Amino acid sequence: MKKIKMPRLPATARGLARRMRFLAEMEKLKLVERQNSVLDASRRENSAEHSWHLAVMALLLADYADDPRVDPLRVLKMLLLHDIVEIDAGDTFLYDPKGRRTQSKRETASAKHLFGLLPAREARDLRALWEEFEARKTPDALFAASLDGLQPLFNHYLSGGRWVRRHALDTRDVLDKKRYIGDASKVLWKYARQLIDLSEHAGIFTSPQAGSRPPKRH
Amino acid sequence: MKKIKMPRLPATARGLARRMRFLAEMEKLKLVERQNSVLDASRRENSAEHSWHLAVMALLLADYADDPRVDPLRVLKMLLLHDIVEIDAGDTFLYDPKGRRTQSKRETASAKHLFGLLPAREARDLRALWEEFEARKTPDALFAASLDGLQPLFNHYLSGGRWVRRHALDTRDVLDKKRYIGDASKVLWKYARQLIDLSEHAGIFTSPQAGSRPPKRH
Repeated sequence: MKKIKMPRLPATARGLARRMRFLAEMEKLKLVERQNSVLDASRRENSAEHSWHLAVMALLLADYADDPRVDPLRVLKMLLLHDIVEIDAGDTFLYDPKGRRTQSKRETASAKHLFGLLPAREARDLRALWEEFEARKTPDALFAASLDGLQPLFNHYLSGGRWVRRHALDTRDVLDKKRYIGDASKVLWKYARQLIDLSEHAGIFTSPQAGSRPPKRH
Repeated sequence: MKKIKMPRLPATARGLARRMRFLAEMEKLKLVERQNSVLDASRRENSAEHSWHLAVMALLLADYADDPRVDPLRVLKMLLLHDIVEIDAGDTFLYDPKGRRTQSKRETASAKHLFGLLPAREARDLRALWEEFEARKTPDALFAASLDGLQPLFNHYLSGGRWVRRHALDTRDVLDKKRYIGDASKVLWKYARQLIDLSEHAGIFTSPQAGSRPPKRH
């Protein structure tokens, strides 16, 4: 993202000033563009509205987590914050192996900068939540990640995939990269596979070449 | 908003199908434009990313509510959902008296349509939360409304108010329309007044004409 000069914020008590400094920086997530399109294809989706959509999904889909320990409100908070590191690091496309090699390093530097703007307690609590999401080990993080995997598929299908088509993604790669949805929810993984199938029929993903198809088992 | 044709969604159990139908409709909030601008002035802010920004504010600013009964998580949920009725009703500008006369009727019709997409229990729970926000009577609703009043002021100031300048808002009107922030948080209302003052200095709001200023008290 190109450097944006922010005006001087109001002088106030230190705790509020630090929170508002962080919240000012959050404005920038609205400028981080994803490989998704809004419904009328007028522009690309950004990471702030993507995060909002995910938060509403968390409100409504928590019942479909396989693990009964999933806490919908922790999932909600994780999803609100999961992409803020893209403010410095940019969005990394799931199907971009080169970008993904440096993703973790770039995002860790961004986390240090952004969470460091906050008062110590908030910095520690929110950074811990972000790290839990990144590690994908706890039931909450696995479920949050599964929603984060489902939402772009849903958006591609609803918007006709007008932006993602240019990548000519192979359906088998999509299935492979999205399989982790099933680690947290069998129901949502089934739904995701239906979306992928419908999207292939709509020409959003490319169907495997007949010649390169693995031989059928008999 | 112009009619957007949605593709057929995957067939699945009724409860999930209704939730996904609602979540598909949520895509449209990304197309509802506000009287605000993103930081680089490349486009107007939309109601989905505005709602995300508010949710993050709720995570960080709940300590500044004057009423100790404020429940940050209820506030967070209210803010995620508070603007979804704009999907059918459009965004109504705070300083547009004509639009505001029909706002309630348009938004109630939209609420009926949108919440009606959900299974009965979710429809009832989320609609009750939205109505609580609209009524601005409970501590949670008053605090959620105060954040909803503060965020656009913050955004105008940070973005140089590039969109809102065309309305040539009078600082006194802004102060008058935003006074309700102080009903829920004295600290945030003080901060808002500082933002309004700095925004007037930056030329985002128009300062009162010397001639039309009320006479000073002696």
